[in-house]
Amino acid sequence: MKERFIGAGIMLPLLILVYLGGYFMIAAGFAIGIIGVKEFYGGFVNMGFKPSYAVGYGAIFALYAINLWMPGNYQIVCAWLVLVVLTSILYIFKIDEHKAEDAMATIVGIVYVGFFTYHVVLVDQSAHREFVWLILIIAFSTDIFAYFAGLALGKHTPKLCPNLSPKKTWAGAVGGTLGAIICSAVFGYFLCPDLLVHCLILALVGSPIAQIGDLSASAFKRKMGIKDYGNLIPGHGGVMDRFDSVIMVAPLVYYYIAFVL
Amino acid sequence: MKERFIGAGIMLPLLILVYLGGYFMIAAGFAIGIIGVKEFYGGFVNMGFKPSYAVGYGAIFALYAINLWMPGNYQIVCAWLVLVVLTSILYIFKIDEHKAEDAMATIVGIVYVGFFTYHVVLVDQSAHREFVWLILIIAFSTDIFAYFAGLALGKHTPKLCPNLSPKKTWAGAVGGTLGAIICSAVFGYFLCPDLLVHCLILALVGSPIAQIGDLSASAFKRKMGIKDYGNLIPGHGGVMDRFDSVIMVAPLVYYYIAFVL
Repeated sequence: MKERFIGAGIMLPLLILVYLGGYFMIAAGFAIGIIGVKEFYGGFVNMGFKPSYAVGYGAIFALYAINLWMPGNYQIVCAWLVLVVLTSILYIFKIDEHKAEDAMATIVGIVYVGFFTYHVVLVDQSAHREFVWLILIIAFSTDIFAYFAGLALGKHTPKLCPNLSPKKTWAGAVGGTLGAIICSAVFGYFLCPDLLVHCLILALVGSPIAQIGDLSASAFKRKMGIKDYGNLIPGHGGVMDRFDSVIMVAPLVYYYIAFVL
Repeated sequence: MKERFIGAGIMLPLLILVYLGGYFMIAAGFAIGIIGVKEFYGGFVNMGFKPSYAVGYGAIFALYAINLWMPGNYQIVCAWLVLVVLTSILYIFKIDEHKAEDAMATIVGIVYVGFFTYHVVLVDQSAHREFVWLILIIAFSTDIFAYFAGLALGKHTPKLCPNLSPKKTWAGAVGGTLGAIICSAVFGYFLCPDLLVHCLILALVGSPIAQIGDLSASAFKRKMGIKDYGNLIPGHGGVMDRFDSVIMVAPLVYYYIAFVL
């Protein structure tokens, strides 16, 4: 338990970077992308695959360089995706050393970790940068409320997804969603009352997606034969363990801003 | 040999669709995307993976629906990529039936086959739709000239990439590039003389990329334990065997138009 408090303390500098936004947010996103890809590839290595760390780091670097160079240009992001796939395939031209899975793992790590987390930066650069907080509120309040709702009421409700994550219950899932709605309502009411209804919609859709993010990480870790992605944050596992929900909620919030607001 | 002529005859309707362009080009791209993904997934099945055909077809359909609905919107293409990854990961939530590789194969098939070939349609919708012909000229003249140059001079030159494709020689590679440059020069001189220099640059860069596309297909097929992706076109294998170079050249030509021209 003491470890978890120390871990939470390590999160504080990150929150300061989010608060400052702009270049600080870009730096935070880049760091999370690089560390996240490193941890995710580590899981694949545990499966016997050899993803290309060089291609992974290079791709994340290129994504953020593009953002600094021509922010808001999505056509070049499509070109970036093509280059990611092309260089990953080139990597298996050493056909005696590499499997097709090595290229596939390289590509999936870049897109799932690097590109998904990148949307936090895009939200920061959008017309509603305060919604970066909403991403974190939806993701973390879902985690916390699901934990306590499951603890209090879980014994009497069926399991959510027993093969994937044996301890999760429907009570936790519903409690997590209600908790996210309440926290997002408080956030919206005090910080952006004119967008309150959108905060509620995002919490209602985003909390289940946060839980899908959590379960996705469980599915990957189960297949990789690991318990945690890393041990960077004492008591919280690695960056990928802590941000498994954020990864999925960030694109939702970003595209909601882009296409609905 | 007779088979190859029949095969070439089957290509004719496709050329008519390319000539007509617009909706006909969209239909051709969509058909190639669907058949290509089906063939590519078939190779993965041969490796013991179970990619989701439903997610693959659905993703290609969505990509073309987006094109019809809001052409030129690349932000929504980024949202499409997020959804592709998300649904592919959901697919492995049936953790006892599916491997992580099943999700990865699903994603890579959609991006490498569906998204790459989609760029032919984007070129057709660009300010230089005549460059769709240039894609085909670079890809196919590289194939043909490499074949004959290798046949004539290959015995005296070192192998290009013996582990990957034992018959290919440097003579073929150089001959293919020279052939592509000559054919593109003829095309440019007669059909778009003001863009002649760009045709030459694209042939010079695009012909090696066409050969990388060819070798990529060889690498995948080697790993999949298959000789051809399919047998749709008599004597030519499947769509993916015929379009392995086009897949790589199309994005190059498209982004050249977008960022250079």
